[in-house]
Amino acid sequence: MAVDPSQVEDALAAVVGAAHVEVGDAVGVDLTHDEALGLGPVRPLGVVHPGSTDEVAAVVRWAADVGVPLTARGSGTGLSGACLPRSDGLVVAFDRMADIVEIDPDDQVAVVRPGVTLAQLDAETDAHGLVYPVFPGESSASLGGNVATNAGGMRAVRYGVTRHNVLGLTAVTGRGDVIRTGGRFVKSTSGYDLTQLVIGSEGTLALTTEAILRLHPRLTHGATILVPFPDLEHIAAAVPRVVASGIGPTILEYIDLVTMGAITANVGLDLGVPPDVQAAALAYLVVVLESRTEARVEEDTAELAALVGAMGALDVYVLPSGAGAALIDAREKAFWTAKAAGAHDIVDVVVPRSRIPDYLARCQELAAQHESLVVGCGHAGDGNVHLSVFQPDDEVRSRLMSAVLGTGVELGGAVSGEHGIGRSKKRYFLESVDPTAVELMRGIKATFDPAGVLNPGAIFD
Amino acid sequence: MAVDPSQVEDALAAVVGAAHVEVGDAVGVDLTHDEALGLGPVRPLGVVHPGSTDEVAAVVRWAADVGVPLTARGSGTGLSGACLPRSDGLVVAFDRMADIVEIDPDDQVAVVRPGVTLAQLDAETDAHGLVYPVFPGESSASLGGNVATNAGGMRAVRYGVTRHNVLGLTAVTGRGDVIRTGGRFVKSTSGYDLTQLVIGSEGTLALTTEAILRLHPRLTHGATILVPFPDLEHIAAAVPRVVASGIGPTILEYIDLVTMGAITANVGLDLGVPPDVQAAALAYLVVVLESRTEARVEEDTAELAALVGAMGALDVYVLPSGAGAALIDAREKAFWTAKAAGAHDIVDVVVPRSRIPDYLARCQELAAQHESLVVGCGHAGDGNVHLSVFQPDDEVRSRLMSAVLGTGVELGGAVSGEHGIGRSKKRYFLESVDPTAVELMRGIKATFDPAGVLNPGAIFD
Repeated sequence: MAVDPSQVEDALAAVVGAAHVEVGDAVGVDLTHDEALGLGPVRPLGVVHPGSTDEVAAVVRWAADVGVPLTARGSGTGLSGACLPRSDGLVVAFDRMADIVEIDPDDQVAVVRPGVTLAQLDAETDAHGLVYPVFPGESSASLGGNVATNAGGMRAVRYGVTRHNVLGLTAVTGRGDVIRTGGRFVKSTSGYDLTQLVIGSEGTLALTTEAILRLHPRLTHGATILVPFPDLEHIAAAVPRVVASGIGPTILEYIDLVTMGAITANVGLDLGVPPDVQAAALAYLVVVLESRTEARVEEDTAELAALVGAMGALDVYVLPSGAGAALIDAREKAFWTAKAAGAHDIVDVVVPRSRIPDYLARCQELAAQHESLVVGCGHAGDGNVHLSVFQPDDEVRSRLMSAVLGTGVELGGAVSGEHGIGRSKKRYFLESVDPTAVELMRGIKATFDPAGVLNPGAIFD
Repeated sequence: MAVDPSQVEDALAAVVGAAHVEVGDAVGVDLTHDEALGLGPVRPLGVVHPGSTDEVAAVVRWAADVGVPLTARGSGTGLSGACLPRSDGLVVAFDRMADIVEIDPDDQVAVVRPGVTLAQLDAETDAHGLVYPVFPGESSASLGGNVATNAGGMRAVRYGVTRHNVLGLTAVTGRGDVIRTGGRFVKSTSGYDLTQLVIGSEGTLALTTEAILRLHPRLTHGATILVPFPDLEHIAAAVPRVVASGIGPTILEYIDLVTMGAITANVGLDLGVPPDVQAAALAYLVVVLESRTEARVEEDTAELAALVGAMGALDVYVLPSGAGAALIDAREKAFWTAKAAGAHDIVDVVVPRSRIPDYLARCQELAAQHESLVVGCGHAGDGNVHLSVFQPDDEVRSRLMSAVLGTGVELGGAVSGEHGIGRSKKRYFLESVDPTAVELMRGIKATFDPAGVLNPGAIFD
């Protein structure tokens, strides 16, 4: 539909104040994209910066009334194009709703508004000896964005993902209704779980305006352990043993040879692995152990070393704390390393963790068939595989991506473990998912958003 | 609608075989009720025992076509009337679909069909050194029923509830379509989470025919610790400190004086608490600690003792293992003790755990106002309060229940923590929940079950 920009500006200014609306050229270029590869920027009609749940509800009611699409935006660090604006729509930016409402140490919850960043929350919870344990690797990401994409990250093997750590929401549906779901408790069987439904829905069902987050005791002792292996099959065989041992690692990552070289070179990190071991190692396992006491960390480290030693590890290195932190940091920046290296697309498939070697072997076959380079790392404990795909030809790459993602689903996995579908993986998602499930999702969408104004075109059309 | 019973029998026999259908008087009396208090038995038109997902789908398609309501039934141990049949409907009994399809130690999952009992699964996982950690207290309960009610239990403080331990489902929607959700992985952001939507939906959205369950390493060392306190306020103050300590108890229960007397007398259990301590104790905290080594259990026990001692505990008793197991068992049977004592209704409210004393104090006021007796115990770590309500007059009890449940919601809680709404708590649920949320639930229901044949009348009308 055609909406007159000046009418848009006036209508929104009446809701949030003229200072909090921009239209046309006043819209900053930062708001025209997220970090998804391969999607060009899109300039929206305008941007509105609501200051309260009520203002968000009023904006949505207006938008539903006139039929203007709304794209919610936190920090814009997403990797799937879920907050890419539409040229006929508005961005709802949550930068004015960026305060931590409360840290409640007794119920161990934080109540946050959607614009709060992970870094901001981490500093605040640290002061209480608590932690919000979802670290998707980009600490400037917003909690609203984390809820929308069900963000994961390396600590999921111990603490689960966003879904497991959000207890309740205040959200505005596409009808402009405010709903409050869940609460300061971890269990409830009181009707359908709308909290879980909104989490991971990428802004298509409701706009989150407040979230109740579960906090955990912050563990103060830890060790980062680097374990070179001859190949990934050995790592895949070792991982179930590590999980079954009950050691309970906080992080359990594999990194392939190319990626290890790239991410360490990128930050000038020397991990002290001797040349002969480096020469024999085709893959690395990185384990972070954390506990309440130093003695337990040491005990767990010894147990882990014995266990991986028996599973074919080439050696075991307990990294000095500086190097350990630098390696984890470098791993978190793997996406940026891949982007800087010119990767054309990224993969975030999840498969049953026992299928990782099989999956990666098939990906290498597919890469060879398509004369492309596919390298990566991933959350070995979760079966979440991150790959960088290098293939400049759009058509070839599209076929390769289709095969790579379809193979993951074929092995019992899903297209996205934590980035989301957004716009960049929509085609592959629709290719691989059961049409009956998509039909149900469309029905749910129509219930929450009958006018279809919340992020239309994300996940499915 | 009026359906001819002989037509029903013929139609169902064509799907599942004549041996697996009963109609009229052939329906066993066991199938006419669950364990909810205050709901009389209802004799259904008939019972069908499907043997496969395909047969379930065919039954649902037929039912949707002719408009016959279907009530799914596992073991019938539910406490909210969610599997109470309808006189104009059929029971779908899952006793023929009761096999463990697979235990996969590498991916640490079990794949089960809905009729499998918790006892059956526990024996099988034990052989692998693994555990499915949801223990709602009734080991004859079925996994299908656990999924339908999002069952919880005492170990939720450590492992979460059913929702956190079910990774994927095969289910038949009210349209008779088979959907497969999730998989052998703990994370995914690939469209709306239909697994989470079906869990806790009490058979109103889809009939689960297979579930993928997350298993955990089975811990082999543990201790049960009994801590008498002068009153519940002291327990409520101690619980957040226990949680914040990082000790990570497997069980963290409070039991009030009356309930402790009843459940221990019921099984003739003497916990060895001296009379002077008994006289001073108005409430008890029960803690189970589990770990990989005996040394850690001892260390954690000492830390816990110091912590609760500083928070006003009257003493700390590490129970001999036989007595510890007997106390936990007696606590699990608290419902049966209450029922045997003549309780007229039960409460399963969840509140933020810091609000437990406030909530219970208000409940005592309400009990006094209504000349009723209200006593109980609960999951102190989760804020899940179980109360037995003694008040024979239906009308007075109804007003009291309304006030007791409404107060829980007013304090930031929800009507049911783990039993579900079913038919027995429907009125109170609809009184307390936001109508906007119920409207969304109705829309979701219509999407999954347009003919309204899946357990109509449960949760909402």
